Amino acid sequence: MFKEEIKVMDCTVRDGGLMNNWQFSDEFVRGVYDACAEAGVDYMEIGYISSEKAFSRKEVGPWKFCAEKDLKRITGDKKNSLKLSAMADIGRVDFSDFPKASDSSLDMIRVACYAHQMSKAIKMAHHCIDKGYETTINLMAVSSVSEPELEEALKDAAKSKVPIFYLVDSYGSMHCESIEFLMNKYKEMLPGKEIGIHTHNNMQLATANTITGLIHGATRLDATLLGMGRGAGNCPIEILIAFLKNPKYRLLPLFKAIQEQVLPMSKKIDWGYHIPYLITGALNMHPRDAIKWMESEQKDDFVTFMKKMHDYELLE
Amino acid sequence: MFKEEIKVMDCTVRDGGLMNNWQFSDEFVRGVYDACAEAGVDYMEIGYISSEKAFSRKEVGPWKFCAEKDLKRITGDKKNSLKLSAMADIGRVDFSDFPKASDSSLDMIRVACYAHQMSKAIKMAHHCIDKGYETTINLMAVSSVSEPELEEALKDAAKSKVPIFYLVDSYGSMHCESIEFLMNKYKEMLPGKEIGIHTHNNMQLATANTITGLIHGATRLDATLLGMGRGAGNCPIEILIAFLKNPKYRLLPLFKAIQEQVLPMSKKIDWGYHIPYLITGALNMHPRDAIKWMESEQKDDFVTFMKKMHDYELLE
Repeated sequence: MFKEEIKVMDCTVRDGGLMNNWQFSDEFVRGVYDACAEAGVDYMEIGYISSEKAFSRKEVGPWKFCAEKDLKRITGDKKNSLKLSAMADIGRVDFSDFPKASDSSLDMIRVACYAHQMSKAIKMAHHCIDKGYETTINLMAVSSVSEPELEEALKDAAKSKVPIFYLVDSYGSMHCESIEFLMNKYKEMLPGKEIGIHTHNNMQLATANTITGLIHGATRLDATLLGMGRGAGNCPIEILIAFLKNPKYRLLPLFKAIQEQVLPMSKKIDWGYHIPYLITGALNMHPRDAIKWMESEQKDDFVTFMKKMHDYELLE
Repeated sequence: MFKEEIKVMDCTVRDGGLMNNWQFSDEFVRGVYDACAEAGVDYMEIGYISSEKAFSRKEVGPWKFCAEKDLKRITGDKKNSLKLSAMADIGRVDFSDFPKASDSSLDMIRVACYAHQMSKAIKMAHHCIDKGYETTINLMAVSSVSEPELEEALKDAAKSKVPIFYLVDSYGSMHCESIEFLMNKYKEMLPGKEIGIHTHNNMQLATANTITGLIHGATRLDATLLGMGRGAGNCPIEILIAFLKNPKYRLLPLFKAIQEQVLPMSKKIDWGYHIPYLITGALNMHPRDAIKWMESEQKDDFVTFMKKMHDYELLE
């Protein structure tokens, strides 16, 4: 499926960091960075921009903040075309936390928001555009948003200067029909904007949903090495690149980073398909209860977790 | 997606047995059997019917043969509606190996063949129909068959008395567009027949491809507990049942069997998504080289495997 305009973003450190509080070794982050650069991946999202007031450096690693000195330690004497992105969560970052793009190694800021935060997200994104960044808005958890609420958010987005909007399946609950429905709505309501897609693998549909997004017009594709990401993880970038068969990408550097960095990490951190994540995905719920369950000693007692979640659902 | 005519078949023991030579404990097989019965799953494929001349009982377990005494040990005093199936591979079974259906605990024989074996498969399937079985033909490895060869096989199939044909993605190399294309071809060329689908997870698309098959008219859906099956495994039955939301099925018994039987097994046998399986899937090749690699001490050296396979591809 050769589409020249496709841009792939690796989110291993940013989304994977949700599983270890962004406490990666420099060797790991540099391994991912070098692999993405050699593989011809277009962007790497290396972490979040956050306010120092919102998080303690005792609890979270440097990639929750993306300070310039930390970025420089990874990029070194940069001689490649890999662009760097950081995500900004509404409510956890102040405008003053963004340096000017000309003073930063970051090329792009992606503003993550829920539907009811769209106006705030647009204001922040405009601020980032004014500071010189490429900018996107990533509208999260769209599977649990009512259609009128979604349409209101998209109407505001359409009027903004922000050029790229993401369809985000935060709960990993969508399948090809829901992706097609939303892609058509996004295209219709956001004329002239680029659409991106970010998926989760709770129902083992992350890769397929990314491909369905692509078929229906998404040009910005998120993925992570070995699917490393929150809970059930994401679309594995090595599968996406193998699928795309696009001559601008190379697979081998990604396999190298997986065997040297990511596979050893997977023995310590349990992202990926597990039954508790299937349960929250199938119930269209945030994965937080499943993540907590997976961190407990009862993690393999799926029957008890299912009963607990089922009660929860009946109560709501 | 409520479609009353859907029938789900669990293939955990049959396809999973390709990973351990069908050497399952009775406790495991009974756990799967009881779970399927309690969950309302329509069929369980418990193994193969094979000629004793083709395999040695020293090397393979009882589910490579499905002798009546072994079946009875699992079903006991059967009081449920779960039907039992066995697969028959062309060339590895003689007509005399099939007992009459009235003398057997088996309800269904599924004849597996390659496109060039279709005439033999039809002859065997007709023999099984005459002996009183429900019968299907499962056309394997269809992703590597030329269109004229496939059409010849389907023309013969259309003229047969066999009521059910399966689309089988043996190499795990298909995605939604190839599934849709083949489903449309099967429906067009096999009027009046039921279509089934059996997928593999090399590119993490097994579940999505099963759903796409369903959307395009497949009514017979194969799946396995926790995706247990050859190489990258299959569509996980617990995801399929969660997705279907069909009141005739129950999830909880499947979770129970997974936590008690299948998850412990997954610590010993390495089915599921691994990079070597991605590589053969993406190259549309039989998984045998990847399985051999995964059994070697170099199993995590993906770069070397990729180079080896790439040479292989260039030589062909």
